[in-house]
Amino acid sequence: MADELTEAGGKVRLYVAADLGTGAQVSLSEGQAHYLIHVMRAKAGDLVSLFNGRDGEWLAETGAVSKRGVTLSCLRQTRAQGPVPDLWLVFAPIKKTPSDYLVQKATELGAVRLQPVFTRRTIVTRINEDRLLANAVEAAEQSERLDVPEIGAPLTLEKLLAQWPAQRRLYFCDEGGDARPLAQVLAERESSPAAILTGPEGGFDPTERALLRAQVFVTPVTLGPRILRADTAALAALAIWQGSAGDWR
Amino acid sequence: MADELTEAGGKVRLYVAADLGTGAQVSLSEGQAHYLIHVMRAKAGDLVSLFNGRDGEWLAETGAVSKRGVTLSCLRQTRAQGPVPDLWLVFAPIKKTPSDYLVQKATELGAVRLQPVFTRRTIVTRINEDRLLANAVEAAEQSERLDVPEIGAPLTLEKLLAQWPAQRRLYFCDEGGDARPLAQVLAERESSPAAILTGPEGGFDPTERALLRAQVFVTPVTLGPRILRADTAALAALAIWQGSAGDWR
Repeated sequence: MADELTEAGGKVRLYVAADLGTGAQVSLSEGQAHYLIHVMRAKAGDLVSLFNGRDGEWLAETGAVSKRGVTLSCLRQTRAQGPVPDLWLVFAPIKKTPSDYLVQKATELGAVRLQPVFTRRTIVTRINEDRLLANAVEAAEQSERLDVPEIGAPLTLEKLLAQWPAQRRLYFCDEGGDARPLAQVLAERESSPAAILTGPEGGFDPTERALLRAQVFVTPVTLGPRILRADTAALAALAIWQGSAGDWR
Repeated sequence: MADELTEAGGKVRLYVAADLGTGAQVSLSEGQAHYLIHVMRAKAGDLVSLFNGRDGEWLAETGAVSKRGVTLSCLRQTRAQGPVPDLWLVFAPIKKTPSDYLVQKATELGAVRLQPVFTRRTIVTRINEDRLLANAVEAAEQSERLDVPEIGAPLTLEKLLAQWPAQRRLYFCDEGGDARPLAQVLAERESSPAAILTGPEGGFDPTERALLRAQVFVTPVTLGPRILRADTAALAALAIWQGSAGDWR
């Protein structure tokens, strides 16, 4: 009889690119095959869950394990692909470890797109998009999401604003001045589709703040009287949005 | 003329135990003296900010720097000690790195007490209270708090509940079942003083969930349909509470 492979938090879940459906055969990537066989010690007949962001979640059976890898057979759908709240996170890249953490947490908190933006005070000059995606995939697998957030190609703030989709409200976490509390703003108006914008360690400079405030689709918001690190601000704002306007209601 | 020493986020701020007041002389601990002199390269006459959780924030001048350390003289108060939202975080200890992160973030998010609690599925068996406190102090210094959260001595869940102050509502982040969303619960009732309770990596066991739900001061709450890691759940709940019931309003 088939065994269900389990991790600490539940069954092993893997994100795959292939189409999923009854009888579909799915070959794993080298990294996933290694994880499944050598880390989780899967054997032929073991059951795992698969998702691809399109076809819901499928229970699949591990086929024969060889040196060349492993193929899984889809048995049945266990969850249907449903709508998800339409929330983006636009963030100035920060140092490596906090950035990994930010991507993992933003994925758990349900952001559907993670968009790096370069600002004047951004210290980090290069972004490893593969690393961002790997963190997002791992967090999606563990959080039981049925999709993986898209990782946007990095843009400068000016370019981002020039090509911004006008119907998507951009909540700009503004440390200085007269911005209103995020929870209060969300209680008053329709706030989806939406995006949260957070700056780098040193915040936005005055020119950037003025530019942001001049956009009709931008609402400056505050996250209280204490100074939050860039990653804390992003996570706090995502949580408040999900609580007020997303699927935590 | 006195120079103001600045860190990335602003002036150097140090948490000290001593009383602060006009003319008060404050000797730094060995670690703080090292940081100020060797990391921040302070010289006599440089200005730093001090706070102790009681007397507000004070501008102080660095005295003569010697091998034996340094003494600071308080010049004037720059911020008065005010009331802060009365929010605790009760958390099952998690692995070292996420635990460091949790303490830092919870401090930025304004928790006034961090209370470790041992549950049946808690894997971590020892808590380094000095390390928790050091993380809390550093985060308080950087977040411009005027106080440092208290670190409670670890308790079992049963002991914690037996000695719980009945007027403090305990929001229990419950992964399973019929709990209502935290933001919705907070919108309906007076919710201060309050505490957020989060479990270990594997969650609470059924006996614990039943025990918690049997307490009149406990309200089970949900944080949405995705599975959050223990530290993410804690930070999300603290942010939502501050946004709805704390000082982010």
